[in-house]
Amino acid sequence: MTDLTRAVSLLTIDVDAVVANWRRLSSLIAPCEAAAVVKADCYGLGVDHIAPALALAGCRSFFVATVDEGIQLRHLVPQAMIYVLSGPVSGSEGDFAAHRLVPVLNSLAQITGWAAFAKFGSAAPASAFHIDTGMNRLGLEEHELERLVGKPDVLTAVRPILAMSHLACSDDDGSPMNEAQLATFRRLTAMLPAMPLSLAASGGIFLGRAYRFDMTRPGAALYGLNPAPGKPNPMSQVVRLQGKILQVRDVDSPQSVGYGASHRVARKGKIATVAVGYADGWFRSLGNRGFGFIEGIKVPLVGRVSMDLTTFDVTDVPTHLVHPGTMMDLIGSNHGVDDVAAEAGTIGYEVLTALGRRHHRRWLSSAKGGPSA
Amino acid sequence: MTDLTRAVSLLTIDVDAVVANWRRLSSLIAPCEAAAVVKADCYGLGVDHIAPALALAGCRSFFVATVDEGIQLRHLVPQAMIYVLSGPVSGSEGDFAAHRLVPVLNSLAQITGWAAFAKFGSAAPASAFHIDTGMNRLGLEEHELERLVGKPDVLTAVRPILAMSHLACSDDDGSPMNEAQLATFRRLTAMLPAMPLSLAASGGIFLGRAYRFDMTRPGAALYGLNPAPGKPNPMSQVVRLQGKILQVRDVDSPQSVGYGASHRVARKGKIATVAVGYADGWFRSLGNRGFGFIEGIKVPLVGRVSMDLTTFDVTDVPTHLVHPGTMMDLIGSNHGVDDVAAEAGTIGYEVLTALGRRHHRRWLSSAKGGPSA
Repeated sequence: MTDLTRAVSLLTIDVDAVVANWRRLSSLIAPCEAAAVVKADCYGLGVDHIAPALALAGCRSFFVATVDEGIQLRHLVPQAMIYVLSGPVSGSEGDFAAHRLVPVLNSLAQITGWAAFAKFGSAAPASAFHIDTGMNRLGLEEHELERLVGKPDVLTAVRPILAMSHLACSDDDGSPMNEAQLATFRRLTAMLPAMPLSLAASGGIFLGRAYRFDMTRPGAALYGLNPAPGKPNPMSQVVRLQGKILQVRDVDSPQSVGYGASHRVARKGKIATVAVGYADGWFRSLGNRGFGFIEGIKVPLVGRVSMDLTTFDVTDVPTHLVHPGTMMDLIGSNHGVDDVAAEAGTIGYEVLTALGRRHHRRWLSSAKGGPSA
Repeated sequence: MTDLTRAVSLLTIDVDAVVANWRRLSSLIAPCEAAAVVKADCYGLGVDHIAPALALAGCRSFFVATVDEGIQLRHLVPQAMIYVLSGPVSGSEGDFAAHRLVPVLNSLAQITGWAAFAKFGSAAPASAFHIDTGMNRLGLEEHELERLVGKPDVLTAVRPILAMSHLACSDDDGSPMNEAQLATFRRLTAMLPAMPLSLAASGGIFLGRAYRFDMTRPGAALYGLNPAPGKPNPMSQVVRLQGKILQVRDVDSPQSVGYGASHRVARKGKIATVAVGYADGWFRSLGNRGFGFIEGIKVPLVGRVSMDLTTFDVTDVPTHLVHPGTMMDLIGSNHGVDDVAAEAGTIGYEVLTALGRRHHRRWLSSAKGGPSA
């Protein structure tokens, strides 16, 4: 990360907005519990800044992808329940116990392995079951559940405290997959002893009450992504990305701009070169498709995105607003993460997790008494 | 970065191969100098491991994008020449002097600013000129050069030691842009006092001797990317990425796999879920298009790439080779960075710079007496 005075790009992460988004969802779904998905470093936004703020706001349950993420998180939220979605792999059971991490058990093999560990280990944590209802990615299959219920000693030994599944099409409220998965989830969990249930992540929350059960697991919505595409986004934007203009140059036809000469200049105008490129997670697929904003004026990205540089057509921006040193908005309130994702041909999740390490990062949090860096 | 025993993905970076690639290019172009482009953390591969090894091999000149990268690099290669491509912005001249960084001056404004600093500063480093010959991204324009040559005091003050430009289409040896830029470079540099010249990066080196001048600036080729697309790659692969299989499941028609149910299962078979996703730089655009390898057997990526997980059809792999805990090759000798890039619809450069921070990273270097982590 760079020093602010030298920074050529600035990533501002509004931790208060994350907390406000969590509170909004928590109120919406009460008395159902709102957990927080903080895997992949809070989708790239900084788990060390965000997780403690969520815990302070009352969030009690957190989900991560790997044991390593769980160990890091344990230091940040000492009292919270931490669920590890990958479950134990390659003999990592001892790490779960040492850091009080709840394994999400995804197969009968993981369950019997955990039962053996729990019987012989001194203080194995409780566990969660992941039941596959149609993703075919991770989770127990029906035939595994049938075998599991025939082994009451195993069921007792692993002390399950949550049964969860994951929706494949929750971003599309018209997909028949949602109701099918809901029905399968009800049918399969009925085979198990009574325990708290969780099906919905961000999208599932907005499919309605039937999908919420005892706990929901929002991630994307906390970080400002729209949990119900096609409808107005109920969440607050969390991310602002700005890049510094290094140079402004006059161009005219028949010049071209950038690698591959992919942008042909059609009229006398001005090109601004900004110090952000695909090495910063500003996707190469934004070439000739993306946008920036200068003082609220939209400017088209022209030419290909380079590793460290991107060029914009700033012909229509008043000259006094565009000079070397000016910061251009790349992601922000009038051009959100979902907008950039659409321009790049991907989803907001990938825009967030790709945000690069060269940006000077600044976290806004009133809990710490103001901006921190 | 993760602990190796718990690691669910492993990124091996062959520093010896980088050094071998540099030596190969250096021999090829001698007596022309081979610099090394190490911006963006050596294209994401770890400048702290790679730059010292290159310096030890005899590389004397390094290029970075920003002042911050220059400061980091100065500690790694104390004796080398370090060129900073963005030049001074926002009053960073003092940082250049303090760390003996050579600014690449991209505009007349940067040159006059540096001249003023050099006159009043005690020990300003020498400088380089970047002349634009058709990228329209950064660099001096002809009318700026005309004004510059009329200011001999400024030219003397900034002590230029290199004049460089950058090719837009060097990956296409049939593009007329290359010869046009070469001619422009010759014409414009002839306006300046005699000094060393540099036009070619990795691609330009392979356009022929005429493009090499006094110094070339390879980056991509050092890291194993093909500098001459369409011809056999003369460089050694540097990167190997492996992801751990978390689960293997039986599937059959009419099931679907993953988000959006985008992969429909057509036959009875097996799906392996690997603990690498787009948060690890394994692009979402690889969904239903990418490949993995198990013991040399090619397996198609099926369904969408998730944030932390990817699914592969392993039906045709012998059962004893596929079980939870097995490492699958995602990038490697039989499936190089350029291959993955083609499948993802981008270029190898972006595959490298996107490689994520969750991978357990291991650098192979004989200079340090073997593998280091």
